[in-house]
Amino acid sequence: MSLTNATPLDIAQSAREGSRTLAVLKTKERNAALIAIHEALADGKEEVLAANAKDLEAANKAAAGGTLSASLVKRLDLGKPGKYEDMLQGILDVVALEDPINKTTAKTLLDDNLTLSRITCPIGVLLIIFEARPEVIANISALAIKSGNAAILKGGRESSNSFAAIASIISKALSSTAVPSSCLQLVQTHDVIADLLKLDTYIDLCIPRGGNKLVRYVKDSTAIPVLGHADGICSIYLTNDYPAEKAVKIIIDAKCSYPAGCNATEQLIVEESALSTTLPVVADALLKKGVSLRCDSTSLTTLQSKLDSHSSTLLQTAGPEDFDTEFLDYIIAIKTVPSVAEAISHINAHGSHHTDAILTNDEFTARSFLAAVDSSSVYWNTSTRMADGQRYGFGTEVGISTNKIHSRGPVGLEGLCIYKWVIVGDAQVSADYGASGKQWKHQKLAVGDEESVAQNEEEREVLRKFRASKGQ
Amino acid sequence: MSLTNATPLDIAQSAREGSRTLAVLKTKERNAALIAIHEALADGKEEVLAANAKDLEAANKAAAGGTLSASLVKRLDLGKPGKYEDMLQGILDVVALEDPINKTTAKTLLDDNLTLSRITCPIGVLLIIFEARPEVIANISALAIKSGNAAILKGGRESSNSFAAIASIISKALSSTAVPSSCLQLVQTHDVIADLLKLDTYIDLCIPRGGNKLVRYVKDSTAIPVLGHADGICSIYLTNDYPAEKAVKIIIDAKCSYPAGCNATEQLIVEESALSTTLPVVADALLKKGVSLRCDSTSLTTLQSKLDSHSSTLLQTAGPEDFDTEFLDYIIAIKTVPSVAEAISHINAHGSHHTDAILTNDEFTARSFLAAVDSSSVYWNTSTRMADGQRYGFGTEVGISTNKIHSRGPVGLEGLCIYKWVIVGDAQVSADYGASGKQWKHQKLAVGDEESVAQNEEEREVLRKFRASKGQ
Repeated sequence: MSLTNATPLDIAQSAREGSRTLAVLKTKERNAALIAIHEALADGKEEVLAANAKDLEAANKAAAGGTLSASLVKRLDLGKPGKYEDMLQGILDVVALEDPINKTTAKTLLDDNLTLSRITCPIGVLLIIFEARPEVIANISALAIKSGNAAILKGGRESSNSFAAIASIISKALSSTAVPSSCLQLVQTHDVIADLLKLDTYIDLCIPRGGNKLVRYVKDSTAIPVLGHADGICSIYLTNDYPAEKAVKIIIDAKCSYPAGCNATEQLIVEESALSTTLPVVADALLKKGVSLRCDSTSLTTLQSKLDSHSSTLLQTAGPEDFDTEFLDYIIAIKTVPSVAEAISHINAHGSHHTDAILTNDEFTARSFLAAVDSSSVYWNTSTRMADGQRYGFGTEVGISTNKIHSRGPVGLEGLCIYKWVIVGDAQVSADYGASGKQWKHQKLAVGDEESVAQNEEEREVLRKFRASKGQ
Repeated sequence: MSLTNATPLDIAQSAREGSRTLAVLKTKERNAALIAIHEALADGKEEVLAANAKDLEAANKAAAGGTLSASLVKRLDLGKPGKYEDMLQGILDVVALEDPINKTTAKTLLDDNLTLSRITCPIGVLLIIFEARPEVIANISALAIKSGNAAILKGGRESSNSFAAIASIISKALSSTAVPSSCLQLVQTHDVIADLLKLDTYIDLCIPRGGNKLVRYVKDSTAIPVLGHADGICSIYLTNDYPAEKAVKIIIDAKCSYPAGCNATEQLIVEESALSTTLPVVADALLKKGVSLRCDSTSLTTLQSKLDSHSSTLLQTAGPEDFDTEFLDYIIAIKTVPSVAEAISHINAHGSHHTDAILTNDEFTARSFLAAVDSSSVYWNTSTRMADGQRYGFGTEVGISTNKIHSRGPVGLEGLCIYKWVIVGDAQVSADYGASGKQWKHQKLAVGDEESVAQNEEEREVLRKFRASKGQ
C-alpha cells in the first residue's frame, strides 16, 4: 500500500503488476493475508484511534463552523463502542466466505478430447472511491484480496488521518504474506482521481461509494466501467386488498428503520380504492413516527377528511419534484393511481431502478408487477429495506448496483469476479469443422468446483514456486 | 422501425417505451415475430437485392476511384450465391435457441415464507453500431427480439440503401405481431450517433461492431457501458516438447484459415529450446503459405541458417511495433523466450486479452499458462480460431468481448440478458432480523426453469390482455 507521491500512472501500473501475482495465489494464501491484516489492525487499535481522534477534532471544528454535517462527524468516529470490533470481525467474515474464483461454471464437450470450460477469475484492478466511513477501507481491502483483485482506494478528505494509519498497518501486514503490497494502493489527494479515471488500460472497474454527485461525476469522467447506483428512489405500491396491519408494519420498516439508507422507501403509490380504507391507517402510523406526507391532491383530500387530529404541518401538498426526490429523511411522497398498470408506469418513469415492492394478496397482480417493474430488486409483500448483501446471504456487500449489466442489486464477492473460457484440445483446428467436415458435439457436461485452471492447491503451490524461481 | 427524421431523444425514448412491452412478452410471441420477419424478408428478396445493387454500384465507383477497398465491396454484396439464404436461415436458428429470459438462476430461502430468487431478464435498450455487412441487421434484430431487448441500429454509410430496404420490410412485418415496431429503430445518418451516445438514461448497452477506431471512439464518447473488443492480437506459445506435425496444423489454421478474423494469430512466441527443432518446420509451412515472418534477431538468425531455400523476402526483421500490431494479413511476428513465465508476461503486456494458446505436452506448464494469461479465451493445444460463438455452441454470436465485466469472450444470447432479484414474502420486515431478533435461514434451494416472474405462458397471456385492457 503506497503512501508515497507516486504518479497516477505509477499507481495504476503497479496495481496491475501486483494483480498478476495475486490472481494465481491459492485460497489459503489469500486468506492468510486477510488474517495477517486482521491481527495487525487488532494490535494497532490505539494508533488508529489516535489518528481518528485528529480527524474527529477537525470535523467537530468544521461542524461547529457549519461546513460539515453532524451526521458526517458521527460516521467518522471509529471509537464508538463496538465499531472497531465490528470492522475487525468483518475481515474474519470475509475469510469464512467461499472462494469465488477458480470455479467451473459451465462445461461443454466440443468434440472428443476437446473441452470448453468457463472458469471464474478476478476482474483485475479495481478503483474504489468512497466518502467518510474510514472502516470501509478494511472491508473493501478484504473483499478485493479474497476475490484476487488489486484495488486502488481513495477515501474522503475528512478521514485522511484514520486512513493513513489503517493503510500503513495493512501495508506492513501484507509484507509478510504472499500478497504483494502493490495490490492495495491508497490514494490520499483528490486531484489524482481525474487522472486515474483516464487509465482504462490498467484499471478494470470503478466503484464509487457515495452520493449522487460523486457517482455522476465518475460516470461522466471515465471509459472504465462503473458499478454502483446514484439514487435510491424506492417505492411501495399499496393495493386495496392488503390488510392494513401488515401494510403498516412493512411501510414503517421501509420508511423509518433507516431513512438515510438507499433502500428506504421514498414513495407510496396507493391504489385509488384503498384511499379511504387502508391509507388512513398507514398515514396515521407514519404521522405518529413524525414522517411528513407529501400528498397528491386526491390523497391529500382524503387524508384531510379522515385524519382530523393530524391535519398538522406534516400533512403536505406534493410538488412534482417530490416524485423524483431521494429524501433520505422522514418524508414520503404519496401518489394515487387507478391500477397496477399505472403504478408500474410511474415507478419505471420516476424511480431509480433500485428496489420496489407491491403489497397485495392477489398473485396475478403481484406477478404482473414483479415482471414489469424494471428494478434491480422487486418484492412482493415485504419491505424495500431487505435490499442488502448481508440479508441476501452474500455474507458481505460491495455496494448496490442499478447497472443493467454485470452485477445488479446487492453486489457480493461474485460481482468482483468474471470468467475466462478455457479449451483443452489435442490439435483439433477450426478448419476441421463445418459443412463438409467434422460436426461439433456441443454436449453440455456436468460442472462442479472440482476443476480449476491450475487444478488444485498443491499444483498451484508448485506453480507459484516455479514462477518464483523464474523471478516472476 | 423508424425511418423518419426523429431526433435522437425521440428514438431513444421510443425504443425504451417499446422495450417495456417487449420485456413481458411470451417466448412464443417473440418467436412469432422472428418468423414474421423471416417470411417478409424471404418475400422481399428482390426488393432488397435491387437496393443492394445501388449500394454496390456506388461502392464499385468508389473502389475504382481508390476511396474504398475491394474487400469492403465484396462484403456489401448480398447477391452472392447463398448469402441471402444464410441470412434468412440465421433468423430461424435464433428462433430455435432456448429462451434466455425468465430463468431462475439462484434461489435462497431467507426465512419461512420468504424466498429470494434471481431471475434472468432483458437488459433493456441496445445501441448497435456496425460497419458494412448489411445482413447483420437481420441477425442483430433477431437476437434483440429473442432476448426481449429493444435495439437502435446504425449501419455503415456504404450499405444505406440495403439497410433502408431491409428495415422497411422488418418494420412492416412487426406491425402484425405483438412486438411494437418501436423496438427496432434504424438510424441512417452518422451525425446522430454522438447525441445517442449521450442518452445513458434511455440506452443501457452499446455494442460497436467494427474496427479499432470505431470501438475506441464509442468508448471515449459515452457513459453507456460498451461491449466488444478493439483489437484481436492473439498469440500462440510453442514449447519445445510439442510435436512439429501438430504444431504446423494448429499454427497454419490459426494464421491462414481467415487472416482477417479477430481470432487469427498475430504472434508466435517460441521457447528458446524449440528454435532449431520445431520452429524451422513451422516456419517452412508458413512460408509455403505465403506468410511473412517478422522475426526477432534470435529466431531470424536460426531460420536464416536452417532455411536456405527460403531466405526470401518473406523472412523479415521484426520492429518493436510488430509485437503490438493486429496484422489481419498473411504476416506473423515471431518472438523467442526462455520459458513459459516470459511468454505469459509478453502476452499480458502486448496481447489484446482476446484469445491465446499454448502448445505443449506438459500439463504443469499448460496449467500455469491457462491460469496466468489474462485473456477472454485461453487454449491448450488448439487454434485461436476456435474463439467463436458458433463453435462454442451458443448457436449464434453477438460479437467477441474483451471486457473484464459482464460478458467475456464470444457473446451469445446470455450476454444480452441481466437478472433481477425477486423476494416473495409475507410481511416480514428488515427490523425483525439481526442480533436481538430472528435469524436468517439463508438456505440455498434447487433452481430450475420452472419458475418465472410471470409464472407461465398462460399467466403471461392473461397479463398481456390485462395490460392491453388498461391501455398499457
